[in-house]
Amino acid sequence: MKTNLSHLSNNHFSKGVEILSIGSELLLGNILNTNSRWIAEQLSRLGLGHYRQLTIGDNLERISTIIKEISLRSNLLITTGGLGPTPDDLTTEAICSAFNVKLYERNKLWEEIKKKISTPISDIENSSLKKQCLFPENAKIINNPRGIAPGMIWEPIEGFTIMTFPGVPSELKSMWNESAFDYIKANFSDGSVFFSKTLKFSGIGESILSEQICDLLELKNPTVAPYASLGEVKLRITAKAESESKAKGMIKPIKEKLKTKFSRFIFGEDDETLPSIVIKQLLERSESLAFAESCTGGLLSASITSVPGSSVVFKGGLITYSNLLKESLLNVPTDQLARYGAVSQEVVQSMSVGVKNNLKADWAISVSGIAGPGGGSPQKPVGLVYISILGPNNRSKLIKKTYNSRFNREEIQTLSVNEALNSLRLILLSIK
Amino acid sequence: MKTNLSHLSNNHFSKGVEILSIGSELLLGNILNTNSRWIAEQLSRLGLGHYRQLTIGDNLERISTIIKEISLRSNLLITTGGLGPTPDDLTTEAICSAFNVKLYERNKLWEEIKKKISTPISDIENSSLKKQCLFPENAKIINNPRGIAPGMIWEPIEGFTIMTFPGVPSELKSMWNESAFDYIKANFSDGSVFFSKTLKFSGIGESILSEQICDLLELKNPTVAPYASLGEVKLRITAKAESESKAKGMIKPIKEKLKTKFSRFIFGEDDETLPSIVIKQLLERSESLAFAESCTGGLLSASITSVPGSSVVFKGGLITYSNLLKESLLNVPTDQLARYGAVSQEVVQSMSVGVKNNLKADWAISVSGIAGPGGGSPQKPVGLVYISILGPNNRSKLIKKTYNSRFNREEIQTLSVNEALNSLRLILLSIK
Repeated sequence: MKTNLSHLSNNHFSKGVEILSIGSELLLGNILNTNSRWIAEQLSRLGLGHYRQLTIGDNLERISTIIKEISLRSNLLITTGGLGPTPDDLTTEAICSAFNVKLYERNKLWEEIKKKISTPISDIENSSLKKQCLFPENAKIINNPRGIAPGMIWEPIEGFTIMTFPGVPSELKSMWNESAFDYIKANFSDGSVFFSKTLKFSGIGESILSEQICDLLELKNPTVAPYASLGEVKLRITAKAESESKAKGMIKPIKEKLKTKFSRFIFGEDDETLPSIVIKQLLERSESLAFAESCTGGLLSASITSVPGSSVVFKGGLITYSNLLKESLLNVPTDQLARYGAVSQEVVQSMSVGVKNNLKADWAISVSGIAGPGGGSPQKPVGLVYISILGPNNRSKLIKKTYNSRFNREEIQTLSVNEALNSLRLILLSIK
Repeated sequence: MKTNLSHLSNNHFSKGVEILSIGSELLLGNILNTNSRWIAEQLSRLGLGHYRQLTIGDNLERISTIIKEISLRSNLLITTGGLGPTPDDLTTEAICSAFNVKLYERNKLWEEIKKKISTPISDIENSSLKKQCLFPENAKIINNPRGIAPGMIWEPIEGFTIMTFPGVPSELKSMWNESAFDYIKANFSDGSVFFSKTLKFSGIGESILSEQICDLLELKNPTVAPYASLGEVKLRITAKAESESKAKGMIKPIKEKLKTKFSRFIFGEDDETLPSIVIKQLLERSESLAFAESCTGGLLSASITSVPGSSVVFKGGLITYSNLLKESLLNVPTDQLARYGAVSQEVVQSMSVGVKNNLKADWAISVSGIAGPGGGSPQKPVGLVYISILGPNNRSKLIKKTYNSRFNREEIQTLSVNEALNSLRLILLSIK
């Protein structure tokens, strides 16, 4: 196949790649399309431009129509789904119908498929399973090491290749890794590599960050793109180059520039998270951590303990929802609770003192607030959260946040957890 | 807008709906496209045929081209993404360019947007934020109650309507629920109503459940469709009828049949969750709850406290990661820890006794296990989890689970939380 395509110009390659997911269950919203994302990531790794993803149901005519459309504007189509034995598995048939080509039975393939069927089937020769060995005459087969239905590589018209894969993610992945990746690299890649580095920000919003780096956002290679989620912004720097090391070299100066400009706000890179960074910092200092949670209800502890190995640093957490527990477990004075209320700077500070002493931790964080939807008042509205951080040598910090009323209970809890961990991160950074 | 479309024939409606996701991060495989699935589910609820989903990057010309294509074959396009203030947010501009229409500044909208910006921006009038108040002249605005960028409903040519939404899932959902759903129902539905009832199962796998109801899965109206997620299976029964009451009447016998057959496994309906059901059960009994968590690290408490009003029932939780804390806070005997280890039925039982007494709760749940990835041994592998439940009158239950090695840390924690809550639910059910 390589020779077939080798005469094509680079200009031709620039027509790009498309991914077509086939299955009515996707259109009904029954399942999440994880395959498109996975293939997209693979194509990025191969440095292949990919301009469209499409999803269509199990309908012969519609699949056929969309494939004809794609053949006019792209040079490689990757399909997933519709390769199995049931009546709604129509992919190969629809592709052939799009190009008026017949399907042929492959005897050797049929023998291999029969060997893979574990349950005996009385009339296997006439069963619907046989469909899986039908292919156009000059298609190349992609072996399926994890399942039954094979895929194909087929060039129905000059300059347009289709590769078919099953919809089962594990089968798709093993077929891709064993056969497709090398094939695509040899035939469609222009030799360049894409490499990305992600910087993670806390304490700064997407719009403010974007304003301050508008020059970087307009770069063409490397590109810089922001992604926002609740309480966190990510910047992804992606470079295209001949080799990974060259791409890394192109990314480095931009990364350094951002790190200088936003040092306080950047908490980590790539797979790092706020909890993983805080644990790393405390491990380096051989210091321990404990929590007293009220409105976050265990979320702060859960976020820390989601990190493997957190038990070395994390002593434990006390979730003291009731005032009684704040008194008995955290030694918050009864009159303080009566005078200032559970959501107050006085009580949250007493909570941090209590948990630090009782759990014998180097660092303690306490949180008390009103996550809503009920429990708010004009003086103490939903969204009001106090956080107290206490460390060695009486180092302490008190934080008062009033989160916007558009945030719901879960979001207020998440934002409070991020705020607490980011504040501790900054304190630990400052006493380095 | 309703009158504009009311003259259209049903045949016209049959052209259908398309979903277009806009964002280079989707083409790069950086994020999973959860929006398309969510919208697809919503369209199913509305009984609207939907034949294609498309994804495209942040490129003005390409977005514009694809929108022109869609306008020729569909009557409703729903877009997500590209509405923010950054230079790669191009959706509204690209749509207007597709139909050669100008963008106009909406002063009132700009005032509303400015109010939502919490951080002061020096030159806000000339900032990129202003982009978010630019719309074609006759577009209707979709208010964004959870974020800044509004969307629009616009009919650029007769018989073709575009609705735009941000890519942030929480913003999309609130805009959809507050404005879009009713609009689409009034203007695009064929008059029939879809109504769904979801039954939620715990303690039974999707394949076993599906085998036992294969007759129901083949029904055409109502339809029954299974959806599986970690530790939970949902069955959605959907009926299409002239009215909601008729649809409900069609769903009822199937629901009753399922409830009879799977009574133990069905924990709730629709928006109910295991935590919300357990809280409801305890509220009815005026009984309280407390937790002692080791391997779940706060996740059990966080799941209960995610439910508004949980403070009435939930006394608190002790996250005792270290053996020392198990001794001091839960009175677990030192020799028991030394003899059996923290992950043992003896220790987990002592933990539940300790937390029940110390927090003076009617019900106590304790969890101790090995969530991994490290910490396993041949005798106590990763995935081994003990759960102890203790209630009034010395009612107790001990659970030992050995989760499959394919589950990661987070999944083992989640499965343990589900197991603990479902077991308590069943105990409370049995003593009704």
